[in-house]
Amino acid sequence: MAESAERGAEIARLISLLAALPGLGPRSARRAVLHLITRREESLKPLITALTRLDTEMRQCPQCGAIDIRVPCRICADPRRSGEILCVVEHMGDLWALERAEAFRGRYHVLGGALCALDGIGPEDLNIASLLERARNPELREIILATNATVDGQTTAHYLAEKLSGMATVSRLARGVPIGSELDYMDDGTLADALRQRRPF
Amino acid sequence: MAESAERGAEIARLISLLAALPGLGPRSARRAVLHLITRREESLKPLITALTRLDTEMRQCPQCGAIDIRVPCRICADPRRSGEILCVVEHMGDLWALERAEAFRGRYHVLGGALCALDGIGPEDLNIASLLERARNPELREIILATNATVDGQTTAHYLAEKLSGMATVSRLARGVPIGSELDYMDDGTLADALRQRRPF
Repeated sequence: MAESAERGAEIARLISLLAALPGLGPRSARRAVLHLITRREESLKPLITALTRLDTEMRQCPQCGAIDIRVPCRICADPRRSGEILCVVEHMGDLWALERAEAFRGRYHVLGGALCALDGIGPEDLNIASLLERARNPELREIILATNATVDGQTTAHYLAEKLSGMATVSRLARGVPIGSELDYMDDGTLADALRQRRPF
Repeated sequence: MAESAERGAEIARLISLLAALPGLGPRSARRAVLHLITRREESLKPLITALTRLDTEMRQCPQCGAIDIRVPCRICADPRRSGEILCVVEHMGDLWALERAEAFRGRYHVLGGALCALDGIGPEDLNIASLLERARNPELREIILATNATVDGQTTAHYLAEKLSGMATVSRLARGVPIGSELDYMDDGTLADALRQRRPF
Protein backbone atom coordinates (compact mmCIF):
# COMPACT_ATOMS: atom_id res chain seq x y z
CA MET A 1 0.00 0.00 0.00
CA ALA A 2 2.83 2.38 0.91
CA GLU A 3 4.63 1.66 -2.33
CA SER A 4 1.43 2.08 -4.30
CA ALA A 5 0.85 5.49 -2.73
CA GLU A 6 4.43 6.43 -3.48
CA ARG A 7 4.15 5.50 -7.15
CA GLY A 8 4.47 8.62 -9.28
CA ALA A 9 4.76 10.83 -6.19
CA GLU A 10 6.66 13.52 -8.15
CA ILE A 11 4.04 13.61 -10.89
CA ALA A 12 1.21 13.48 -8.32
CA ARG A 13 2.76 16.51 -6.58
CA LEU A 14 2.91 18.47 -9.85
CA ILE A 15 -0.72 17.59 -10.57
CA SER A 16 -1.82 18.79 -7.13
CA LEU A 17 0.14 22.06 -7.52
CA LEU A 18 -1.53 22.73 -10.88
CA ALA A 19 -4.95 21.66 -9.55
CA ALA A 20 -4.63 24.34 -6.84
CA LEU A 21 -4.57 27.11 -9.47
CA PRO A 22 -7.90 28.88 -10.01
CA GLY A 23 -9.83 27.48 -12.97
CA LEU A 24 -8.11 24.07 -12.84
CA GLY A 25 -9.30 20.92 -11.12
CA PRO A 26 -7.57 17.54 -10.66
CA ARG A 27 -8.83 16.35 -14.05
CA SER A 28 -7.62 19.30 -16.10
CA ALA A 29 -4.35 19.38 -14.11
CA ARG A 30 -3.77 15.72 -15.07
CA ARG A 31 -4.44 16.49 -18.73
CA ALA A 32 -2.09 19.48 -18.53
CA VAL A 33 0.71 17.30 -17.10
CA LEU A 34 0.19 14.69 -19.83
CA HIS A 35 0.42 17.50 -22.38
CA LEU A 36 3.66 18.75 -20.79
CA ILE A 37 5.17 15.23 -20.62
CA THR A 38 4.62 14.62 -24.31
CA ARG A 39 5.60 18.14 -25.43
CA ARG A 40 8.80 18.72 -23.53
CA GLU A 41 10.55 21.10 -25.93
CA GLU A 42 7.53 23.08 -27.15
CA SER A 43 5.62 23.31 -23.89
CA LEU A 44 7.41 22.15 -20.70
CA LYS A 45 10.76 23.93 -21.15
CA PRO A 46 9.30 27.29 -22.31
CA LEU A 47 6.84 27.19 -19.38
CA ILE A 48 9.68 26.62 -16.89
CA THR A 49 11.62 29.51 -18.45
CA ALA A 50 8.64 31.90 -18.33
CA LEU A 51 7.76 30.99 -14.71
CA THR A 52 11.39 31.29 -13.59
CA ARG A 53 11.70 34.68 -15.28
CA LEU A 54 8.52 35.84 -13.50
CA ASP A 55 9.84 34.56 -10.18
CA THR A 56 13.29 36.11 -10.44
CA GLU A 57 12.40 39.39 -12.15
CA MET A 58 8.97 40.48 -10.94
CA ARG A 59 8.97 43.50 -8.66
CA GLN A 60 6.36 45.66 -7.01
CA CYS A 61 6.39 49.17 -8.45
CA PRO A 62 7.37 51.45 -5.51
CA GLN A 63 5.13 54.20 -6.90
CA CYS A 64 1.82 52.47 -7.75
CA GLY A 65 2.11 48.98 -6.22
CA ALA A 66 1.67 47.15 -9.55
CA ILE A 67 3.65 43.98 -10.26
CA ASP A 68 5.95 44.24 -13.28
CA ILE A 69 9.37 43.20 -14.46
CA ARG A 70 10.45 46.84 -14.76
CA VAL A 71 10.92 49.34 -11.91
CA PRO A 72 9.10 51.69 -12.05
CA CYS A 73 6.40 49.72 -13.87
CA ARG A 74 5.69 50.30 -17.55
CA ILE A 75 2.64 52.46 -16.85
CA CYS A 76 4.38 54.71 -14.30
CA ALA A 77 7.37 55.01 -16.67
CA ASP A 78 5.26 55.84 -19.75
CA PRO A 79 5.48 59.63 -20.36
CA ARG A 80 2.33 59.48 -22.50
CA ARG A 81 0.18 58.45 -19.53
CA SER A 82 -1.37 61.41 -17.78
CA GLY A 83 -0.15 62.19 -14.27
CA GLU A 84 -3.28 64.28 -13.66
CA ILE A 85 -5.63 61.36 -13.14
CA LEU A 86 -5.20 58.31 -10.94
CA CYS A 87 -7.30 55.14 -10.89
CA VAL A 88 -7.31 53.23 -7.58
CA VAL A 89 -7.89 49.45 -7.87
CA GLU A 90 -7.77 46.54 -5.42
CA HIS A 91 -5.69 44.02 -7.40
CA MET A 92 -3.44 43.59 -10.45
CA GLY A 93 -6.29 41.71 -12.17
CA ASP A 94 -8.48 44.83 -11.95
CA LEU A 95 -5.69 46.91 -13.51
CA TRP A 96 -5.38 44.37 -16.36
CA ALA A 97 -9.15 44.42 -16.90
CA LEU A 98 -9.21 48.23 -17.16
CA GLU A 99 -6.19 48.18 -19.52
CA ARG A 100 -8.01 45.67 -21.75
CA ALA A 101 -10.94 48.11 -21.94
CA GLU A 102 -8.47 50.67 -23.45
CA ALA A 103 -10.49 53.58 -22.05
CA PHE A 104 -8.10 55.01 -19.45
CA ARG A 105 -4.86 56.88 -20.16
CA GLY A 106 -3.94 57.99 -16.65
CA ARG A 107 -1.94 56.09 -14.02
CA TYR A 108 -2.98 53.50 -11.43
CA HIS A 109 -2.64 52.81 -7.74
CA VAL A 110 -2.94 49.16 -6.67
CA LEU A 111 -4.12 48.81 -3.06
CA GLY A 112 -3.33 45.10 -2.81
CA GLY A 113 -6.81 44.26 -1.50
CA ALA A 114 -9.79 45.84 0.23
CA LEU A 115 -10.58 46.69 3.83
CA CYS A 116 -12.23 43.72 5.54
CA ALA A 117 -13.05 43.72 9.24
CA LEU A 118 -13.87 39.98 9.13
CA ASP A 119 -10.45 39.04 7.73
CA GLY A 120 -8.73 41.66 9.90
CA ILE A 121 -7.49 43.72 6.94
CA GLY A 122 -7.09 47.31 8.04
CA PRO A 123 -5.78 50.47 6.28
CA GLU A 124 -2.20 49.68 7.32
CA ASP A 125 -2.34 46.37 5.41
CA LEU A 126 -3.05 48.12 2.09
CA ASN A 127 -1.04 50.58 -0.04
CA ILE A 128 -3.03 53.50 1.38
CA ALA A 129 -0.23 55.57 2.93
CA SER A 130 1.50 55.76 -0.48
CA LEU A 131 -1.82 56.76 -2.11
CA LEU A 132 -2.25 59.68 0.33
CA GLU A 133 1.35 60.64 -0.39
CA ARG A 134 0.67 60.64 -4.16
CA ALA A 135 -2.54 62.60 -3.63
CA ARG A 136 -0.47 65.52 -2.28
CA ASN A 137 1.06 66.04 -5.75
CA PRO A 138 -0.45 69.36 -6.98
CA GLU A 139 -0.36 68.03 -10.59
CA LEU A 140 -3.06 65.49 -9.68
CA ARG A 141 -6.59 66.62 -10.53
CA GLU A 142 -8.80 63.53 -10.19
CA ILE A 143 -8.77 60.21 -8.35
CA ILE A 144 -11.14 57.48 -9.59
CA LEU A 145 -11.98 54.94 -6.88
CA ALA A 146 -12.37 51.77 -8.97
CA THR A 147 -12.59 49.24 -6.14
CA ASN A 148 -14.95 46.30 -6.70
CA ALA A 149 -18.72 46.77 -6.36
CA THR A 150 -18.69 44.43 -3.35
CA VAL A 151 -19.29 45.27 0.31
CA ASP A 152 -15.54 45.30 1.06
CA GLY A 153 -14.73 47.23 -2.12
CA GLN A 154 -17.34 49.88 -1.36
CA THR A 155 -16.28 50.14 2.28
CA THR A 156 -12.74 50.78 1.05
CA ALA A 157 -13.97 53.41 -1.44
CA HIS A 158 -15.90 55.25 1.30
CA TYR A 159 -12.88 55.17 3.61
CA LEU A 160 -10.59 56.51 0.87
CA ALA A 161 -13.08 59.19 -0.25
CA GLU A 162 -13.08 60.57 3.27
CA LYS A 163 -9.28 60.50 3.57
CA LEU A 164 -8.84 62.14 0.15
CA SER A 165 -11.47 64.87 0.54
CA GLY A 166 -10.04 68.28 -0.22
CA MET A 167 -6.93 66.83 -1.94
CA ALA A 168 -8.36 66.12 -5.44
CA THR A 169 -11.66 65.48 -7.19
CA VAL A 170 -12.73 61.98 -6.16
CA SER A 171 -14.97 59.96 -8.52
CA ARG A 172 -16.18 56.38 -8.88
CA LEU A 173 -17.14 54.11 -11.79
CA ALA A 174 -20.73 54.42 -13.10
CA ARG A 175 -23.21 51.79 -11.91
CA GLY A 176 -25.67 50.31 -14.36
CA VAL A 177 -26.64 47.44 -16.58
CA PRO A 178 -23.59 45.69 -18.18
CA ILE A 179 -23.56 45.33 -21.98
CA GLY A 180 -25.16 42.07 -23.10
CA SER A 181 -27.05 41.42 -19.87
CA GLU A 182 -30.77 40.71 -19.49
CA LEU A 183 -32.78 42.82 -17.05
CA ASP A 184 -34.52 39.72 -15.71
CA TYR A 185 -31.17 38.45 -14.40
CA MET A 186 -29.93 41.72 -12.87
CA ASP A 187 -30.13 42.30 -9.12
CA ASP A 188 -32.54 44.91 -7.76
CA GLY A 189 -29.83 47.29 -6.54
CA THR A 190 -28.21 47.50 -9.97
CA LEU A 191 -31.56 48.11 -11.66
CA ALA A 192 -32.45 50.80 -9.13
CA ASP A 193 -29.06 52.49 -9.74
CA ALA A 194 -29.49 52.22 -13.52
CA LEU A 195 -32.95 53.81 -13.33
CA ARG A 196 -31.87 56.61 -11.02
CA GLN A 197 -28.83 57.43 -13.14
CA ARG A 198 -30.64 57.14 -16.50
CA ARG A 199 -29.27 59.21 -19.39
CA PRO A 200 -30.94 60.95 -22.34
CA PHE A 201 -31.24 58.60 -25.35
CA MET B 1 1.67 51.21 -30.50
CA ALA B 2 4.86 49.12 -30.39
CA GLU B 3 5.48 50.10 -26.80
CA SER B 4 1.89 49.35 -25.86
CA ALA B 5 2.15 45.88 -27.43
CA GLU B 6 5.41 45.33 -25.57
CA ARG B 7 3.88 46.18 -22.20
CA GLY B 8 3.91 43.12 -20.02
CA ALA B 9 5.34 40.98 -22.83
CA GLU B 10 6.87 38.50 -20.36
CA ILE B 11 3.60 38.09 -18.47
CA ALA B 12 1.64 37.90 -21.73
CA ARG B 13 3.97 35.12 -22.90
CA LEU B 14 3.42 33.15 -19.70
CA ILE B 15 -0.35 33.56 -20.05
CA SER B 16 -0.25 32.29 -23.64
CA LEU B 17 1.89 29.27 -22.64
CA LEU B 18 -0.58 28.34 -19.90
CA ALA B 19 -3.58 29.00 -22.16
CA ALA B 20 -2.17 26.43 -24.62
CA LEU B 21 -2.53 23.65 -22.04
CA PRO B 22 -5.64 21.49 -22.44
CA GLY B 23 -8.49 22.59 -20.18
CA LEU B 24 -7.23 26.17 -19.87
CA GLY B 25 -8.24 29.19 -21.91
CA PRO B 26 -6.88 32.77 -21.93
CA ARG B 27 -9.22 33.74 -19.08
CA SER B 28 -8.27 30.92 -16.70
CA ALA B 29 -4.58 31.28 -17.66
CA ARG B 30 -4.77 34.96 -16.65
CA ARG B 31 -6.35 34.06 -13.31
CA ALA B 32 -3.68 31.38 -12.77
CA VAL B 33 -0.88 33.93 -13.39
CA LEU B 34 -2.48 36.42 -10.97
CA HIS B 35 -2.64 33.60 -8.42
CA LEU B 36 1.05 32.79 -8.99
CA ILE B 37 2.09 36.47 -8.80
CA THR B 38 0.43 36.96 -5.42
CA ARG B 39 1.47 33.57 -3.99
CA ARG B 40 5.13 33.42 -4.90
CA GLU B 41 6.40 31.23 -2.05
CA GLU B 42 3.40 28.88 -1.71
CA SER B 43 2.58 28.45 -5.36
CA LEU B 44 5.03 29.86 -7.93
CA LYS B 45 8.30 28.51 -6.52
CA PRO B 46 7.00 24.96 -5.77
CA LEU B 47 5.50 24.81 -9.27
CA ILE B 48 8.84 25.77 -10.86
CA THR B 49 10.59 23.11 -8.74
CA ALA B 50 8.09 20.38 -9.69
CA LEU B 51 8.19 21.24 -13.41
CA THR B 52 11.99 21.41 -13.45
CA ARG B 53 12.21 18.05 -11.69
CA LEU B 54 9.85 16.55 -14.28
CA ASP B 55 11.91 18.04 -17.11
CA THR B 56 15.30 16.93 -15.84
CA GLU B 57 14.38 13.53 -14.42
CA MET B 58 11.61 12.07 -16.56
CA ARG B 59 12.65 9.15 -18.73
CA GLN B 60 10.89 6.75 -21.04
CA CYS B 61 10.94 3.23 -19.64
CA PRO B 62 12.98 1.18 -22.16
CA GLN B 63 10.77 -1.84 -21.45
CA CYS B 64 7.18 -0.56 -21.57
CA GLY B 65 7.47 2.98 -22.98
CA ALA B 66 5.89 4.64 -19.92
CA ILE B 67 7.19 8.00 -18.70
CA ASP B 68 8.53 7.94 -15.15
CA ILE B 69 11.31 9.37 -13.03
CA ARG B 70 12.70 5.87 -12.42
CA VAL B 71 14.26 3.54 -15.01
CA PRO B 72 12.81 0.97 -15.37
CA CYS B 73 9.47 2.54 -14.42
CA ARG B 74 7.82 1.76 -11.08
CA ILE B 75 5.39 -0.71 -12.61
CA CYS B 76 8.04 -2.67 -14.54
CA ALA B 77 10.26 -2.66 -11.43
CA ASP B 78 7.49 -3.83 -9.07
CA PRO B 79 7.97 -7.57 -8.38
CA ARG B 80 4.35 -7.88 -7.22
CA ARG B 81 3.04 -7.01 -10.70
CA SER B 82 2.40 -10.09 -12.82
CA GLY B 83 4.64 -10.61 -15.82
CA GLU B 84 2.10 -13.03 -17.29
CA ILE B 85 -0.35 -10.41 -18.45
CA LEU B 86 0.31 -7.27 -20.48
CA CYS B 87 -2.08 -4.38 -21.14
CA VAL B 88 -1.39 -2.37 -24.31
CA VAL B 89 -2.48 1.29 -24.23
CA GLU B 90 -2.03 4.26 -26.55
CA HIS B 91 -0.91 6.95 -24.09
CA MET B 92 0.33 7.52 -20.53
CA GLY B 93 -3.10 9.00 -19.69
CA ASP B 94 -4.73 5.66 -20.50
CA LEU B 95 -2.27 3.87 -18.20
CA TRP B 96 -3.08 6.34 -15.40
CA ALA B 97 -6.82 5.84 -15.95
CA LEU B 98 -6.48 2.04 -15.68
CA GLU B 99 -4.28 2.39 -12.58
CA ARG B 100 -6.95 4.59 -10.97
CA ALA B 101 -9.50 1.81 -11.59
CA GLU B 102 -7.27 -0.47 -9.43
CA ALA B 103 -8.44 -3.54 -11.32
CA PHE B 104 -5.25 -4.61 -13.14
CA ARG B 105 -2.14 -6.08 -11.52
CA GLY B 106 -0.13 -6.96 -14.63
CA ARG B 107 2.27 -4.77 -16.61
CA TYR B 108 1.70 -2.24 -19.39
CA HIS B 109 2.96 -1.41 -22.86
CA VAL B 110 2.55 2.21 -23.99
CA LEU B 111 2.39 2.53 -27.78
CA GLY B 112 2.77 6.32 -27.82
CA GLY B 113 -0.29 6.76 -30.06
CA ALA B 114 -2.47 4.92 -32.55
CA LEU B 115 -2.08 4.09 -36.22
CA CYS B 116 -3.54 6.88 -38.33
CA ALA B 117 -3.29 6.91 -42.12
CA LEU B 118 -4.57 10.51 -42.27
CA ASP B 119 -1.82 11.81 -39.96
CA GLY B 120 0.75 9.49 -41.55
CA ILE B 121 1.35 7.51 -38.34
CA GLY B 122 2.46 3.98 -39.27
CA PRO B 123 3.62 0.97 -37.20
CA GLU B 124 7.24 2.23 -37.22
CA ASP B 125 6.16 5.44 -35.41
CA LEU B 126 4.77 3.50 -32.43
CA ASN B 127 6.39 1.23 -29.80
CA ILE B 128 5.25 -1.86 -31.72
CA ALA B 129 8.62 -3.55 -32.40
CA SER B 130 9.32 -3.63 -28.63
CA LEU B 131 5.83 -5.05 -28.00
CA LEU B 132 6.46 -7.92 -30.45
CA GLU B 133 9.81 -8.47 -28.74
CA ARG B 134 8.10 -8.67 -25.32
CA ALA B 135 5.44 -11.00 -26.72
CA ARG B 136 8.17 -13.59 -27.40
CA ASN B 137 8.70 -14.05 -23.65
CA PRO B 138 7.33 -17.53 -22.85
CA GLU B 139 6.22 -16.34 -19.37
CA LEU B 140 3.59 -14.10 -21.04
CA ARG B 141 0.12 -15.65 -21.23
CA GLU B 142 -2.26 -12.85 -22.19
CA ILE B 143 -2.13 -9.49 -23.96
CA ILE B 144 -5.08 -7.11 -23.44
CA LEU B 145 -5.42 -4.60 -26.29
CA ALA B 146 -6.77 -1.57 -24.41
CA THR B 147 -6.50 0.99 -27.20
CA ASN B 148 -9.25 3.61 -27.35
CA ALA B 149 -12.69 2.71 -28.72
CA THR B 150 -12.10 5.13 -31.61
CA VAL B 151 -11.56 4.34 -35.30
CA ASP B 152 -7.76 4.77 -34.97
CA GLY B 153 -7.65 2.84 -31.68
CA GLN B 154 -9.60 -0.07 -33.13
CA THR B 155 -7.54 -0.08 -36.34
CA THR B 156 -4.44 -0.33 -34.16
CA ALA B 157 -5.97 -3.15 -32.10
CA HIS B 158 -6.83 -5.12 -35.26
CA TYR B 159 -3.32 -4.61 -36.64
CA LEU B 160 -1.73 -5.76 -33.34
CA ALA B 161 -4.10 -8.75 -32.96
CA GLU B 162 -2.93 -10.00 -36.35
CA LYS B 163 0.77 -9.48 -35.55
CA LEU B 164 0.41 -11.16 -32.13
CA SER B 165 -1.65 -14.15 -33.24
CA GLY B 166 -0.07 -17.42 -32.08
CA MET B 167 2.22 -15.66 -29.56
CA ALA B 168 -0.20 -15.23 -26.62
CA THR B 169 -3.92 -15.03 -25.87
CA VAL B 170 -5.07 -11.65 -27.17
CA SER B 171 -8.10 -9.99 -25.55
CA ARG B 172 -9.79 -6.59 -25.56
CA LEU B 173 -11.81 -4.55 -23.05
CA ALA B 174 -15.54 -5.33 -22.80
CA ARG B 175 -17.89 -2.98 -24.63
CA GLY B 176 -21.11 -1.90 -23.00
CA VAL B 177 -22.99 0.77 -21.11
CA PRO B 178 -20.77 2.81 -18.75
CA ILE B 179 -21.83 3.05 -15.10
CA GLY B 180 -24.07 6.07 -14.48
CA SER B 181 -25.07 6.55 -18.10
CA GLU B 182 -28.60 6.83 -19.49
CA LEU B 183 -29.55 4.56 -22.38
CA ASP B 184 -31.25 7.46 -24.17
CA TYR B 185 -27.86 9.18 -24.50
CA MET B 186 -25.83 6.12 -25.63
CA ASP B 187 -24.93 5.65 -29.27
CA ASP B 188 -26.52 2.80 -31.25
CA GLY B 189 -23.30 0.80 -31.66
CA THR B 190 -22.67 0.69 -27.90
CA LEU B 191 -26.26 -0.38 -27.20
CA ALA B 192 -26.06 -3.09 -29.88
CA ASP B 193 -22.77 -4.36 -28.34
CA ALA B 194 -24.26 -4.26 -24.83
CA LEU B 195 -27.30 -6.26 -25.97
CA ARG B 196 -25.28 -8.84 -27.86
CA GLN B 197 -22.87 -9.36 -24.98
CA ARG B 198 -25.56 -9.37 -22.25
CA ARG B 199 -24.79 -11.32 -19.07
CA PRO B 200 -26.99 -13.35 -16.69
CA PHE B 201 -28.37 -11.14 -13.89
